[in-house]
Amino acid sequence: MEKIAVLGAGSWGTALGFVLADNGHDVRIWGHRQEIIDGINEMHENKKYLPGVELPMTMRGYTSLEEAILGVETVILAVPTKAIREVLQSLGKVATNPLTIVHVSKGIEPDTLLRISEMIEQEMEPAKLQDVVVLSGPSHAEEVSRRQPTTVTSSSKNMKAAEKVQDLFNNHQYFRVYTNPDVIGVEIGGALKNIIALAAGITDGLGYGDNAKAALMTRGLAEIARLGSVLGANPLTFSGLTGIGDLIVTCTSVHSRNWRAGNMLGKGHKLEEVLDNMGMVVEGVRTTKAAYQLAEKYDVKMPITQALYDVLFNDVSAKAAVDSLMSRTKTHEMEDLANILGERKN
Amino acid sequence: MEKIAVLGAGSWGTALGFVLADNGHDVRIWGHRQEIIDGINEMHENKKYLPGVELPMTMRGYTSLEEAILGVETVILAVPTKAIREVLQSLGKVATNPLTIVHVSKGIEPDTLLRISEMIEQEMEPAKLQDVVVLSGPSHAEEVSRRQPTTVTSSSKNMKAAEKVQDLFNNHQYFRVYTNPDVIGVEIGGALKNIIALAAGITDGLGYGDNAKAALMTRGLAEIARLGSVLGANPLTFSGLTGIGDLIVTCTSVHSRNWRAGNMLGKGHKLEEVLDNMGMVVEGVRTTKAAYQLAEKYDVKMPITQALYDVLFNDVSAKAAVDSLMSRTKTHEMEDLANILGERKN
Repeated sequence: MEKIAVLGAGSWGTALGFVLADNGHDVRIWGHRQEIIDGINEMHENKKYLPGVELPMTMRGYTSLEEAILGVETVILAVPTKAIREVLQSLGKVATNPLTIVHVSKGIEPDTLLRISEMIEQEMEPAKLQDVVVLSGPSHAEEVSRRQPTTVTSSSKNMKAAEKVQDLFNNHQYFRVYTNPDVIGVEIGGALKNIIALAAGITDGLGYGDNAKAALMTRGLAEIARLGSVLGANPLTFSGLTGIGDLIVTCTSVHSRNWRAGNMLGKGHKLEEVLDNMGMVVEGVRTTKAAYQLAEKYDVKMPITQALYDVLFNDVSAKAAVDSLMSRTKTHEMEDLANILGERKN
Repeated sequence: MEKIAVLGAGSWGTALGFVLADNGHDVRIWGHRQEIIDGINEMHENKKYLPGVELPMTMRGYTSLEEAILGVETVILAVPTKAIREVLQSLGKVATNPLTIVHVSKGIEPDTLLRISEMIEQEMEPAKLQDVVVLSGPSHAEEVSRRQPTTVTSSSKNMKAAEKVQDLFNNHQYFRVYTNPDVIGVEIGGALKNIIALAAGITDGLGYGDNAKAALMTRGLAEIARLGSVLGANPLTFSGLTGIGDLIVTCTSVHSRNWRAGNMLGKGHKLEEVLDNMGMVVEGVRTTKAAYQLAEKYDVKMPITQALYDVLFNDVSAKAAVDSLMSRTKTHEMEDLANILGERKN
């Protein structure tokens, strides 16, 4: 049994803390909002982000980062990608020993085009960083906290670190962790599926059916794999839990905020209005920008990403963007698919 | 513009006839039930299988196979897999010229373990068979007949035949046809996704969530690809419209009968009761038997198919089967995935 700090008291951080506490660990969850931390300590509930779930007594909330990480070797980083650098800078200041950082966020940083594990390596000085691990997969927080069967992947450059995180989280009853050495593929799949979820929400919002959505998801996975392969990922990873699996759950589930945001866009609402209305971070919006930039930089064809970018940032109507996607000129399916592996060989 | 016969007046045959008629072809739909054929000719509606859709005047119904195929070069074969041999035998008797047969059914024959294109080649004498084409993809009939955007794949050993079928069906407004030369992959993907849809219905019926279903679908696609590769398919096909695409639409849509049948099984109903209740053919039940036999014959690990086989034919409870699937011992995701390509090389 181990002391583990979870940074970020949103729904996913809280649910992962719940799993770790269920496994007998001493969980310290850090957040900056006093009322949430008080609720966790006094009522054993995160009313804002995971209402109705009774949190274990072994899960304690902290607003002081220094106190939260005292005596801790493993830190779960569960903050929105936008806040990651700031939190890492604070963490670097108070850390007294080398930390294994397990990140569970999904995104790519616009402009720098870095994956989250790269941001962690950039921000943390080597003496304070033991290993970086990414935990990812098809996993809605609400279901995990109701102990519904869930499978995820633990990935790291150092397989021993990935296996250690696998052991910490594995719960025979409902939470199954696989390992996968392909950090790039795991991070790219997790980040870019939010783009396709936004697009799937748009087609649903426009009133198109399941046939159109399935086609969009298939093509979406193909373009994710195409970019991922160019960036050095193993194409097989996109056929796994962090690829297809996460794509399916995000595009088809009522819990998904990226889908919900897309759905509102499809119904004709403006982006600012949608973001105001959500009250939570919609990672796919930033990720669309980053993926668009990556596609330009590496000259990879990503028609769905490019169409969504136009909807989000260039005032193109959702309907015009989807209609232009549907009328693409390619007619031979394997041309597209062969590119996934083909571009990797070139 | 061409005379085309559609054999089978179920929902899919009728919807495909609708597309062909929309494209200006002279469509002759054949069925053995007089009231359905009368409804098509007199009311321009297939009340039983596609209610509420106004069928074009250029679509005529026939109960005589001989009349339906008079002067026709292309036949769309849209009958349940169970009826295919009988219909082909009748067709062989009345055909007067070599036919291109486009089959749109999804299944594998138990015991013979033949794909549908192989059954066609076996039943039709060479002088009466020009080409065999398979048309498959994520495509609910109800949506197609409401002209909602849909994409499918046309596949044949003879690419010229696949391209001709592509031209017949392509509709710029809502029906987009791609070609793919991998007949084996297209047929295996289309048939076996019904197994995973049954299993997905079971997990939903048991009350498990989206996380569990996404994991099941991911693993399901992996085992389909594993078998398909051993049988000579191109593994990439399973990442396309007839693989992932069709799997998604069948496992997540309210229209899918295989999912609905699984859902009832998950809720504790017996197989006979479920089949009685459906009133339509549930292809996945026969396909599970055939895939189980294929897995035995070629020594391919297909844990989901095997678990479902036990539920359907060996009286194992749905809950016991799913729980045993969730607690499998493998912990390294890539072991599984690498096998997809690995087994092909061996």
